[in-house]
Amino acid sequence: MNPATPPTASDVLAAAARIAPHAHVTPVLRSSALDAMAGCELHFKCENLQRVGAFKFRGACNAVFSLDDAEAARGIVTQSSGNHGAAVALAARLRGTHATVVAPRSTPRVKLAAIAGYGARIVPCETAQASRDATTAEVLADTGGVLVHPFNDARVIAGQGTATLELLRQAPGLDTVVAPVSGGGLLSGACIAAHASDPDIAMYGAEPLGARDAHDSLAAGERITGRIADTVCDGLRAELGSVTFPILQAHLREVLLADDTAVIRAMRLVWERLKLVVEPSAAIPLAVVLGHPQRFAGRRVGLVLSGGNVDLDAVSAMFVTS
Amino acid sequence: MNPATPPTASDVLAAAARIAPHAHVTPVLRSSALDAMAGCELHFKCENLQRVGAFKFRGACNAVFSLDDAEAARGIVTQSSGNHGAAVALAARLRGTHATVVAPRSTPRVKLAAIAGYGARIVPCETAQASRDATTAEVLADTGGVLVHPFNDARVIAGQGTATLELLRQAPGLDTVVAPVSGGGLLSGACIAAHASDPDIAMYGAEPLGARDAHDSLAAGERITGRIADTVCDGLRAELGSVTFPILQAHLREVLLADDTAVIRAMRLVWERLKLVVEPSAAIPLAVVLGHPQRFAGRRVGLVLSGGNVDLDAVSAMFVTS
Repeated sequence: MNPATPPTASDVLAAAARIAPHAHVTPVLRSSALDAMAGCELHFKCENLQRVGAFKFRGACNAVFSLDDAEAARGIVTQSSGNHGAAVALAARLRGTHATVVAPRSTPRVKLAAIAGYGARIVPCETAQASRDATTAEVLADTGGVLVHPFNDARVIAGQGTATLELLRQAPGLDTVVAPVSGGGLLSGACIAAHASDPDIAMYGAEPLGARDAHDSLAAGERITGRIADTVCDGLRAELGSVTFPILQAHLREVLLADDTAVIRAMRLVWERLKLVVEPSAAIPLAVVLGHPQRFAGRRVGLVLSGGNVDLDAVSAMFVTS
Repeated sequence: MNPATPPTASDVLAAAARIAPHAHVTPVLRSSALDAMAGCELHFKCENLQRVGAFKFRGACNAVFSLDDAEAARGIVTQSSGNHGAAVALAARLRGTHATVVAPRSTPRVKLAAIAGYGARIVPCETAQASRDATTAEVLADTGGVLVHPFNDARVIAGQGTATLELLRQAPGLDTVVAPVSGGGLLSGACIAAHASDPDIAMYGAEPLGARDAHDSLAAGERITGRIADTVCDGLRAELGSVTFPILQAHLREVLLADDTAVIRAMRLVWERLKLVVEPSAAIPLAVVLGHPQRFAGRRVGLVLSGGNVDLDAVSAMFVTS
């Protein structure tokens, strides 16, 4: 499988079989109170209950277990400031190899601890994308390891698609799916999985107002890069990649935006109504559904709750000040 | 079914069938990190994801749907400072009748809002049990309604037992079950369900150190009443009832205690590791398992996460100060 070629529905099915021994089948939850609030049926796919606390394990696991033994033995290299790093670390450990994660010095302590806890080596870098890329290139050269990119990789995209594959089986008859968009791995996989099942499913991306490169890139017809993201959604600060952008162009109905206040309000609703700990990035699908009632009225909507890795103290402060 | 006669395993099975159209089959979750910390296998039954956010819906639903039409039409009366009130309110609405909930003036605002949100009438009383009982008696006399006691009622106990019935089906081979104990409805139902399946399953109650009447009653061989509970576990301040006490005497291995600091620490672990919002009362089984490692070493333990109804701001403050 060429990491630079968009995956097909068959790749998503193969990924589902490949990761099945390792990944959880996460539940789909509902809330009549949230349905009433939104004016539509909401079906929440609980990837915060996935291993490492995020959907990222699906893609990392598929990529790492797609390698042949010789490749895997070289070790896995990635760059991540969060969940993908932990996901690669765990997948490498399960595969019996080692991982190196290039992580900005600004990475939250809890996320670094998670990466280290799964046994990966952490190589610090600066926050700027150029520093991340340069350090990653150095590590690849030094170690001879195999790169598993966080999103711009067909194996990763196919793995992420398994979340939506499961969701559509667990909640038959959905006519709409909303997932967060950052680098586009989750959403690209969702598009491929959903449209293989039913080409009429309306696919929406949910993006922070302060990191709206996907929204603007799709409007412009070309990838917009180099902006500085400013959002509470620490998992949604990446830019679309060369593999994910054309997939979204082909499949997506629209990218909808929500500001941080709406995200925090939606996050609080998920905690209170669904009794789930989710991170800000995971709450943005609900935020955009609540923010665009006319688009979703009466529809049967699947929403991907992408992850639950938060610093409880920091989130508590958000709730108190919001 | 006589509410004062202990329910049988058949009653639990009948309850499961009766509530099936209305209640959720809640998931059972695991965490390898928590297993490592505890030195045993932990299987968490997620009743925080039950309707109204607590196992209480099972018992209330079974009791309300056990009534014949003429009884149900008289309306349901109960006393509750929390989840049971909301559960009765929802069950009554689903049955097409009305409910009156006698609630102490000290009941948290969010819990009163939940009860009212399900359409029940709230009658305020003072906190002392005598005031609760007197007010409940008045309401029963005034309305001619049917009492559904929060725990000292065989229909309620049978309903609560369905949580453990499901748990044992979802996680075959458990040798130990730990549930919180307050009035004893949940734990009594758990005992009956578990021992019908396997009489060798070790049944433990988990109780706050500051509300240890069940622990002391079982040691004394008679019900101890009239103490003032002092614990962060707002759902565990009731005393054993005349129906629940002998069931626990017959089935229970032991009641284990945890102080509030251990409860809050366990609650934080559940939020962080399982990504679940649980209330303090729901975290006490994990607190006692972590506090008594020698008793649980190597065992396959089911723990009932009893509910998730919290005031987020208040819990945030607990985390910050703990």
